[in-house]
Formats: sequence, structure tokens, C-alpha cells
Amino acid sequence: MSAAPQERDALKRAAAERAVQEIESGMVVGLGSGSTAAFAVAALAQRVAAGLRVATIPTSEHTAALAYRLGLPLTGFAEHRRIDVAIDGADQVERGTLNLIKGLGGALLREKIVAAASARFIVIVDDGKLADHLGGPTPLPVEIVRFGWQVALDRLAGLGCVPRLRQDGGEPFVTDNGNLIADCRFAAIADAAALEARLAAIAGVVESGLFVGMAPTVIVGGAAGVEVIER
Amino acid sequence: MSAAPQERDALKRAAAERAVQEIESGMVVGLGSGSTAAFAVAALAQRVAAGLRVATIPTSEHTAALAYRLGLPLTGFAEHRRIDVAIDGADQVERGTLNLIKGLGGALLREKIVAAASARFIVIVDDGKLADHLGGPTPLPVEIVRFGWQVALDRLAGLGCVPRLRQDGGEPFVTDNGNLIADCRFAAIADAAALEARLAAIAGVVESGLFVGMAPTVIVGGAAGVEVIER
Repeated sequence: MSAAPQERDALKRAAAERAVQEIESGMVVGLGSGSTAAFAVAALAQRVAAGLRVATIPTSEHTAALAYRLGLPLTGFAEHRRIDVAIDGADQVERGTLNLIKGLGGALLREKIVAAASARFIVIVDDGKLADHLGGPTPLPVEIVRFGWQVALDRLAGLGCVPRLRQDGGEPFVTDNGNLIADCRFAAIADAAALEARLAAIAGVVESGLFVGMAPTVIVGGAAGVEVIER
Repeated sequence: MSAAPQERDALKRAAAERAVQEIESGMVVGLGSGSTAAFAVAALAQRVAAGLRVATIPTSEHTAALAYRLGLPLTGFAEHRRIDVAIDGADQVERGTLNLIKGLGGALLREKIVAAASARFIVIVDDGKLADHLGGPTPLPVEIVRFGWQVALDRLAGLGCVPRLRQDGGEPFVTDNGNLIADCRFAAIADAAALEARLAAIAGVVESGLFVGMAPTVIVGGAAGVEVIER
């Protein structure tokens, strides 16, 4: 929980390396975004350098650049409609349900599209990301269109959260898809599925960072070692 | 139903002019998109030239250009979070429920944001747009993100429709928001609210052209005159 950044990086790397062991030659692999996913990209690149054959679909321009630099073969949905395994981080994992909050890195939309298109979804986290309930200290990122974003923020507030338009150097943060992000602070999210549906029903909401009922395999790096959790 | 284009234009214009009678000085007015809404923009411009004071929020770049050309004062959500009246066309109106299909003009996302932000929503159509059930000959437009659009089309097909990526001169049609449109042909839409929720739950779907439970005032231009329908 209170691990120093360097120790936490070691936990993330351990989870990432364990996840990459699941990849077999011939697979199409979805590559997540963010610091933990970056460790998985690096570990996968090492296996590819050693002879593993895969094709990868990245979930952000940033991850695409990293994958390209490390020599991973890139592909897309024009070639492959179905992904064998997606590996991605998360900002918060609810114990028991394995529902997730994602999107603090700003790539939630493509991450959700890739996860939903994957036969298997592996989430890698350090143990500080586990929580008994979603929300609380972790804001829920929601991707919204630019047109009428002020109204979307009002609607989000109406769901019981405190929404803030994400900034980036004094300007609104813009996603890879050209949209904005509202970071929504909920005291606690009691019914994630119901909240996801209410968010999706708001005109102007493109996607939320709630990943509900996606049955991920969660690989947790902790001081005592790596734990694999499945429902 | 089988009116010639010129006769139909007369019906659309009659409905539009009746709708614009509802506008009072000081109102913020949402301006729809498409051929019927354009008649309302023109009728409103005439009233403004005669002294009516309004501010308008257009739902498309096209309507914004038209409104500007006709001298209508333009505003936006930065100035006004709440719209008094939105006037817009529709592609299909279900008798009884007054649920709608919109978006054949490609502006459904902004149209829905504006309609949802409006205290009153007036829909103007010629009588050929009325139907006992949504769907059938009228495809349902669904705005989808570019990333993974192939997967989104597969998901839409899984809901029981035949989706087609809208084309524009041999290229995919791109909305004002930078997204794509899938035109989805459903035999008949039995439960519009349930379908809307299922569409919204698909990762990659930004918004659908189903306007459900928005309690519009529907103004219908027909051969026998203009009819005003409210639930």
C-alpha cells in the first residue's frame, strides 16, 4: 500500500512478466496503456526478440510508439477482429467482483474496445490498486465529447459525484480520439453496473472508465509475491 | 406519404413555421439539422429580422453556417447551459410513444445533446415520417468511434440488424465530431428503450439515433394542415 515508487515499479514489473508468460506463438495481443502495461510491452518485446511470434494491437498512440520502438509487430482491427489476450493495467480493482476503474492515463475508450474484443483479458496491478469498493480516493474518468461538455459535467454531478474537467498544462486534456475527460469523484460506488448504464445513457458521454463484469484474470504484484485471481 | 419532393417541402415548411411561432423574445433556441430544420432556421431568421431577440445553439457546422448567413445570433454552452426550446426534424416518429429515429443527416450526437439540454423539444416532420413502429424501411444511424469500428459493426449485427458503414464519395462519412456512422437496418424495433441501452453499452458506440422518452411536441405537416401532437 505504502510502497515507495521504486518498490511499486518492481511489483508492477513482476505482475507484467507473469502475465506475458500466458502469451503463446501465433496470438494476437492487445497492449494496454500506462506505466504497468509498459512493463508488459517490454517483457513481451523480450520474448519476441527470443523468437515468439505475435501481432499486437495497442490501445494508445503512446503504447503504439513504445511497441514500435521495441520491435513488436503492430496490427489492427482491419486484419484481426478478435484478440486472443489483452494485457492492461487498472487504477482500481474491486476485490470479489473484479470490476475495475481505468482511464487515469486517458486511454480508457480504446482500452475498453480492446478488452471487449479479447477472448481473455489480463489485468496487471500492484497490490495498492486493490480495494473493497470502487471509488473513494480513485476518481472515475469519463470520456465526453467536446460539444456541450459543460452540460455533460452537470449531468455527471447529478449522479452524485464531483466531476472535474481534466487539464493538461492549463488546457483541457484531449484524448487520442479528440474528446475530453471528466474525472468524477464518487464517495463509493455501490452498484457499478447500474452506474455504468446511467453514465452510458448521458448524451455526450462516449465511454466511462468503469469496466464491469468483464471477468478479467487479475495478476497482483505484492511484497509476498505474485498472485493470480480469477472469479 | 407519396407526396412529390416539392409538395413535401411545403409540408415541412408549414410544420417549421408553426414551430417557430412558439419562440418568444429572450429565449435560447436549439437549432436542428437537416432539410426540415433548415426551414425553421429560415422562419426564425425572418422573425429576428422583424425584431425578435433570441440566441441560438446550432447542432451542426452546416446549420451554424446557415444561421450565421441568415443573421441569427449564435451562442454556445459556455454561455448557456439550458436551452428553452430546441426545434429539429426527425427521420421517423413512432405514433403513440413519440419515440424517434434521427441522424440520417449525420448530426445525431449534437442533436441529442441539444435536445436533452432543452426545456422543450419540438420535432417537425411531414406526415410521411410517421410510423406505427420504428425501424423497418428507416435505418437507425449509430455514431461509432473510428478505432475498432469493424468490431463495433460486428456487435451491432449481434443486436439483430444489418449495419452498414456510411460512405461519402467512396470514403467513410465522418461526423462533425470526427466519428463514423453505422446505418443499422432493423426489421422492427419492438422495445426502443431496451435497444437504446444495449447500443449504449457497446464499447465504441458514441451515441445512437434513437430518441426515447424525450416527450417531444411533434408538429406534423400534412395535406389536411398542420397537426400538433403531445403525449
